[in-house]
Amino acid sequence: MTGDRFTTSAKRGRGLRVAVDAMGGDKAPGEIVRGAVQAVMNDVGAGIVLVGRKNEIELNLDDLKPGASIEVHHSNQVIGMDEPPIVALRGKRDSSITQSVMLLKTGSVDAVVSAGNTGAMVASAMLMAKKLEGVKRPGIAIPFPTDTEKGICIIIDAGANLKCKPIHLLQYGVMGSVYSEHVIGVKKPRVALVNVGAEDAKGNSLVKEARGLLEDSPLNYVGSVEGQDLFQGACDVAVCEGFVGNVILKVAEGMGEGMLRWLKQNIQAYVARGGDQNIAKELFAGQNVLGNYSEYGGAPLLGIDGVCIICHGRSDANAIYNAIKVAKKVVEEKVNEKITETMKDLGLWWRLSRFFDRDGE
Amino acid sequence: MTGDRFTTSAKRGRGLRVAVDAMGGDKAPGEIVRGAVQAVMNDVGAGIVLVGRKNEIELNLDDLKPGASIEVHHSNQVIGMDEPPIVALRGKRDSSITQSVMLLKTGSVDAVVSAGNTGAMVASAMLMAKKLEGVKRPGIAIPFPTDTEKGICIIIDAGANLKCKPIHLLQYGVMGSVYSEHVIGVKKPRVALVNVGAEDAKGNSLVKEARGLLEDSPLNYVGSVEGQDLFQGACDVAVCEGFVGNVILKVAEGMGEGMLRWLKQNIQAYVARGGDQNIAKELFAGQNVLGNYSEYGGAPLLGIDGVCIICHGRSDANAIYNAIKVAKKVVEEKVNEKITETMKDLGLWWRLSRFFDRDGE
Repeated sequence: MTGDRFTTSAKRGRGLRVAVDAMGGDKAPGEIVRGAVQAVMNDVGAGIVLVGRKNEIELNLDDLKPGASIEVHHSNQVIGMDEPPIVALRGKRDSSITQSVMLLKTGSVDAVVSAGNTGAMVASAMLMAKKLEGVKRPGIAIPFPTDTEKGICIIIDAGANLKCKPIHLLQYGVMGSVYSEHVIGVKKPRVALVNVGAEDAKGNSLVKEARGLLEDSPLNYVGSVEGQDLFQGACDVAVCEGFVGNVILKVAEGMGEGMLRWLKQNIQAYVARGGDQNIAKELFAGQNVLGNYSEYGGAPLLGIDGVCIICHGRSDANAIYNAIKVAKKVVEEKVNEKITETMKDLGLWWRLSRFFDRDGE
Repeated sequence: MTGDRFTTSAKRGRGLRVAVDAMGGDKAPGEIVRGAVQAVMNDVGAGIVLVGRKNEIELNLDDLKPGASIEVHHSNQVIGMDEPPIVALRGKRDSSITQSVMLLKTGSVDAVVSAGNTGAMVASAMLMAKKLEGVKRPGIAIPFPTDTEKGICIIIDAGANLKCKPIHLLQYGVMGSVYSEHVIGVKKPRVALVNVGAEDAKGNSLVKEARGLLEDSPLNYVGSVEGQDLFQGACDVAVCEGFVGNVILKVAEGMGEGMLRWLKQNIQAYVARGGDQNIAKELFAGQNVLGNYSEYGGAPLLGIDGVCIICHGRSDANAIYNAIKVAKKVVEEKVNEKITETMKDLGLWWRLSRFFDRDGE
C-alpha cells in the first residue's frame, strides 16, 4: 500500500535508515562524509548508509573517526553537478544518486539525502520511485528564510515541475501545508499564491484558475503574495510553478551575494582608511548573511513514495547533518501518509462539492 | 507614419516636451514636482508639463521656486497605487495618468513620466497609444544593477505581458537590444534568456521555442542565464515572460531590503556595545544599498508609439529628474524608430530564412 513502506521497515524491527549520497555536492565527499559522521556522533537516531566510491569514502571516514559505525554502499559512478540529468541517469546506472534511490525503492533505507545534481535526483526519484497516491506531480519544497515565528516559508515548487496546471498548484498547497505543519511546526499554515500583485484581478491564467481551487479548498488560503512579501512573513507556504520558484531562489541568492560583495568592498575600504579592524567579525559574528541555508536541512521532494531530501550544492558538513535530521523527522512524522490522507479527503470533498450547491446549504 | 510623431513635433519648431504625472507615486505630488523643478533648474533641455490637480501642484511649485517656468495641465482625478487598472481607467477619465497619455497621443508632448499605478499606466498606453509597427506586445524594460562596464542589465518584460509567446520574447530581445545600445550605451548588447539552468536541454516550452528564434536571429544571443547570473554581468539584456520578470524585480527588492534590515540590526547592536558610532555612515556613505534605482531613471514601456517612462512607486525628486533625462534621451536617440527599423529588418530576414536553406548556402 502506498506510503507504508517506511512504517513497514520500522515494523520490521530495524531502525530508521538514511542513505547519504557521498559523491554529491561541491564539497563531496569530504564534507558530506563529515556531516554523516556528525549525525552518528550526535546520536541522531538513524542508521547512515554512505553511497559512493568506497575507497574515497573510507579515506575520509578514517581521517575523521576510526571505527565510526557507518555503512558504506559502494557505487562506482558520479553524476557531475552540471550534467544533463536524463543523459546522466541513462549512462550511469551505478551512480551514487541512482544507487541511493535504488536503496529507497527496495526498502533498504527510509530516506535519501543528496547535495548532488538536483535534476538527476528529481528525475531518478520520479523514474524509480512511485508517486504518492493521488499526487499528480511531485514538487520541491524549499525552506526560505522569512519573518515569522518559525522563520521559514516553504516555497513549492522550486523546479521539479516547470509547467504547472492549476490542480498541481492546489496539490502543492496541500503538500506544503502538511510539511509546514508537521516538520516546521506551524499551526494552520497560511498558504498563498505567488503573483504579480495582491488584487484578485491580477495574475496569469494559471494563477487565476488555481486561486479558485485554493479558495474553495479546506486549506488556510490567504491570497496572493508578491516577491517582497516572501521575506516579510506574509505566508507559511508559497505556491508557484517550478519555473517561477526556481527563479525566486536563484534571484534571492544572487541578490544576497551581490549585496555581500558590495558590503565587503565597503568594509575593506573602511578598514584600509583606519576603521575598526574587527568590524566584519563584529557585524557577521555567528551569522550566515544569506539566511544560513545549512541550518534548514535541505528541501524535500514531496509527492514521492519515499523521503528524498535535496541539499544545496554548496552544502557543508553541518548542512548534511541537518538534512539527515530533517529526513528522520519527515519519516517519523509520517509526512507522506498525511499527504496521502489529505489528498484523499480533498478528493472526497472535491467530488462532493460538485454534487451539492454548497452556497445554498 | 508610425514612430514619426515626436520627430514631427520637433520639426514643428517647438522644443521637446515631457509630461510628468504629478499625482503618481508614494511621494506625490511633493517629490514629483520637486524632481520636475530640478530638471528645469538644471536646463535638462525639455519643456515640462506637470499633469494633475492644479492647486496641489502650484502649492508645491510656490514652495520650491516661485516663478519657475513649468506648465501645468489640470486633471482632477487620481488613480490610487493599488486600484485595479482597468476599473480605474474606466471610472477616471480625468486622471493624471489618462491625461498624460492623452497629451502624448495628441502630440502635445513627446514623452510621459509617471511613478503612479504601473498597471494603469501600461493599460492606458496600450489602450490609447498605438503599438509600434510590427510589435506584437509592448514590454517594460527594467534597468537592473549588475557587474558590467555600464552597470546595467535590461530585464524585459517586467510585467506588461504576463503570458508570452516565443515571438514576444524574440521581440523583447530586439527592443531590449536597441534600448541597451542607444540609451545605456552598450555596444553589441549580449541578449540572454532567463532560464532555470544554463544547459540547452533545460527550460519550459516557451523558453525552448524562444531559444530557437533567438539563436537564428541577428541579435547577439549568448544563451540562458539563471537568476544569480543577472547580478554578475552575464548579459546586457535578459528576456523573460512578464510574470517572471515581475517576480525577479520584487524578489530582488525584497531580498535587498531583508538583508538591509538584518544589517541595520547588527549595526545597532554593535554601536550599542561600544562600537564605532559612525559605522553606518562609513559603510553606506553616498551609496544606496539597493542599487540606487533613483539613478536609473525609470523603466521605459517599449513597443508603444510614444515614450512612456515608468518610475518606481517610491521615486523621490532625484528619480523623477533622472527619468525626465532618460525620457529626453529616448526621444532624441529615436529609439522607437530604431526598434521599428530593426523589426522590419527582422521581418525581412525572417521571411527570407524560410525560403532558403541557410545551412546549405
